Amino acid sequence: MSTTETPDSVVRAYIAQHRAAFLDNLADWLRIPSVSADPDREGEVRRSADWLTAKLKETGFPVAEVWETADGGLPAVFAEWPSGDAGAPTVLVYGHHDVQPAAREDGWDTDPFEPTVVDGRMYARGAADDKGQVFFHTLGVRAHLAATGRTAPAVNLKLLIEGEEESGSPNFSDLIRRHADRLAADVVVISDTGMWAADTPTVCTGMRGLADAEISFYGPDTDIHSGSFGGAVPNPADEAARLVAALHDADRRVAIPGFYDGVIELTERERELFAELPFDEDTWLGVAKSRATQGEAGFSTLERIWARPTAEVNGIWGGYTGPGGKTIVPAEAHLKLSFRMVAGQDADKVRQAVADWVATQVTPGIRHEIEFRGSTRPCLTPLDHPALQSLARSMGRAFEQKIGFTREGGSGPAAELQDVLGAPVLFLGISIPSDGWHSINEKVELALLDKGVEAAAYLWADLAAHWNTSNAAN
Amino acid sequence: MSTTETPDSVVRAYIAQHRAAFLDNLADWLRIPSVSADPDREGEVRRSADWLTAKLKETGFPVAEVWETADGGLPAVFAEWPSGDAGAPTVLVYGHHDVQPAAREDGWDTDPFEPTVVDGRMYARGAADDKGQVFFHTLGVRAHLAATGRTAPAVNLKLLIEGEEESGSPNFSDLIRRHADRLAADVVVISDTGMWAADTPTVCTGMRGLADAEISFYGPDTDIHSGSFGGAVPNPADEAARLVAALHDADRRVAIPGFYDGVIELTERERELFAELPFDEDTWLGVAKSRATQGEAGFSTLERIWARPTAEVNGIWGGYTGPGGKTIVPAEAHLKLSFRMVAGQDADKVRQAVADWVATQVTPGIRHEIEFRGSTRPCLTPLDHPALQSLARSMGRAFEQKIGFTREGGSGPAAELQDVLGAPVLFLGISIPSDGWHSINEKVELALLDKGVEAAAYLWADLAAHWNTSNAAN
Repeated sequence: MSTTETPDSVVRAYIAQHRAAFLDNLADWLRIPSVSADPDREGEVRRSADWLTAKLKETGFPVAEVWETADGGLPAVFAEWPSGDAGAPTVLVYGHHDVQPAAREDGWDTDPFEPTVVDGRMYARGAADDKGQVFFHTLGVRAHLAATGRTAPAVNLKLLIEGEEESGSPNFSDLIRRHADRLAADVVVISDTGMWAADTPTVCTGMRGLADAEISFYGPDTDIHSGSFGGAVPNPADEAARLVAALHDADRRVAIPGFYDGVIELTERERELFAELPFDEDTWLGVAKSRATQGEAGFSTLERIWARPTAEVNGIWGGYTGPGGKTIVPAEAHLKLSFRMVAGQDADKVRQAVADWVATQVTPGIRHEIEFRGSTRPCLTPLDHPALQSLARSMGRAFEQKIGFTREGGSGPAAELQDVLGAPVLFLGISIPSDGWHSINEKVELALLDKGVEAAAYLWADLAAHWNTSNAAN
Repeated sequence: MSTTETPDSVVRAYIAQHRAAFLDNLADWLRIPSVSADPDREGEVRRSADWLTAKLKETGFPVAEVWETADGGLPAVFAEWPSGDAGAPTVLVYGHHDVQPAAREDGWDTDPFEPTVVDGRMYARGAADDKGQVFFHTLGVRAHLAATGRTAPAVNLKLLIEGEEESGSPNFSDLIRRHADRLAADVVVISDTGMWAADTPTVCTGMRGLADAEISFYGPDTDIHSGSFGGAVPNPADEAARLVAALHDADRRVAIPGFYDGVIELTERERELFAELPFDEDTWLGVAKSRATQGEAGFSTLERIWARPTAEVNGIWGGYTGPGGKTIVPAEAHLKLSFRMVAGQDADKVRQAVADWVATQVTPGIRHEIEFRGSTRPCLTPLDHPALQSLARSMGRAFEQKIGFTREGGSGPAAELQDVLGAPVLFLGISIPSDGWHSINEKVELALLDKGVEAAAYLWADLAAHWNTSNAAN
């Protein structure tokens, strides 16, 4: 019997048998308030790492250890379970064990650190983001073993569970570079995202990258009197505003020459798949807390946020901003811009294109400075990639329905794994938009958590059957 | 002997004879630190008003009184000296007796409230702005009487010397409306401005008006994630910036329909007179602390700042402005705009034009609010106005050279006198740009102060000779 032919009923029976203990364990973990942003809770983040390490050993991982980050940062957990099969692919699962801050007084109906099950949902900080989605891998790998009769997974399974994701992953880049040898993998599975909806299971195929810039414009040496000089010298606030206005053409395409160089365009198949999703503009606007859509001509809202590069002004300031008026030509003005990039774009080239373009826009008499901060690269796994096919197939078996495809408009440090490890990235997540990430009453749907366990249980056997390391260069 | 035929030597001799006492008195007044912006010095502003009232009585004004302003504001001084001649024109001189803050520690070479004469200059806070220029009228009217043998001025002379000019004249509008009957005049003489240069005496013929607006743009209900939503909804900071960019066309003309309605264009004669001034762009840029000129095509720098209406962004803010980056679409953004108006423009119409135009510019999905504050009207006295001719003639006699003509790009509450009293406004000032208004080491050139006294001494007789109240409707 090949690994993909394991009866799904075996997996389901195993999950049903162990569900209660699994949830008890998850609840124990959720009781640890591992809030990475709160210096007073550093001890809790460490306790969470220790708890997970012990639990992974108990699950069967022969290696499970706490990894310290540089500069006194908060620890990650690394675990490894070799397959033992020659030529088995190596998979690295990424998640995080730290959580957002939460307090009952914020408006929670229950104690955020006392998990409470109501109507098939477990409410707790971290239930969906991300402890629940990390933890389904523990029961998932056991179900995989039970169903296949194996004593080790069909893939070389590695886990890297970060402890600083909710505080901006300040040491993540350093961590994965230092441990690149031990993290080496043929494919990365990110379990820190979600699906379109409970009744519309989806697989994400990529994330946008991010580059940001701060641009400063300097005019007069000091603020000067707009009565005496206004209308006769350039105004840096005007300059900043005109630059923002020039960022887009009338079709809301980014007007910076070279900005779109290398962009991997959406395929017709992807556009069809996105169009099949039950998108409702009013509902989406409600989530966006906005009144109207606006974006690049020729693309749908989903295409705009998932698959098109953008330029956004995140902040602008200059001159007098207090009460009343002040008749000045301000000495300086500033912009914070960010650029979302899609696969095929290169952050260095985008930054160079931005810098070159800004230099051509600035009026004589205005001096400008441009500062770029770090960037996050985009990632995209093509629809026909065998690993993505394995994931979609595993999800399809778990959900017993057709799986849709999405992308993620945001950018994450996890995408850096793609670069450092040179491996494609898959997203296996079962959270849904109503799960309340970073908000009050965060929860996970227990029925979907089961599906996560089940998909993980199928995935390792499917990958081993349909993937071999010669695919790794894809 | 007609009043204009009084030998100028008589005036000069009188001034020379009384110069020492005049300067001693001015120094006494300058020792009173009448800083209106400093609540701890309210008593000093009151002492200054009392001192001036006594001095004006001593000068001969039969009426000299302290006028309280509303809301516990700081007092003005009013004085009146009727001519006694039937049909004599009535002149209202405007100035102010409060001063800017000053402290030795700011970098003054001498105590700002201990007047010090060095190399023909008297250094003290208020020496030029405005006590020196108010005070030359006291010796001026005495010289006028001495030279003409009169016992009362040839005009009905009124003085209104404000005590809150340096703190924004918050109660001035109310004050002049309450006392409009007693302030009634055929012509207003503002002695709170300056000339082009010591060797280029000039008369100012008008000031620009001012209207300002704060415009707010509202997009999402809260800041939203630029990864999840950016590029698909309108961004209020982008909106604010695009409005600023749209304010001007490629020729830096204000692009608001109707904005230029009613503008009294510069005459060829005025353009010639402005062009005769020894304008040096590098020197001007040094004063403007700027690197390049920029403005409405087809006009010189002086024409742009003196005689053309402008739109200026005084402040802009929205989104994240702290250290580092924050990937948001901001919920709101704000602009502070000001519009300088020239004679012929109506503030209400300009505001309506701005509001109408803004409404056409705002993207669907963005809500905007526009708030206008008070406005200051422009004033302009035509070159051929008989009162202006009298002033130019008086200045010419004092300086014994040709008098140039300028305008003032700024806006002042004094211009409101033009409206409330329905009288043309003249500017009699002898200060020069190096006098250090609002800065350290403020000073007045004693030789120019003499010229101010002298011009004031000629003006009343000249006005009485060449003006009659039937001109008042000009």
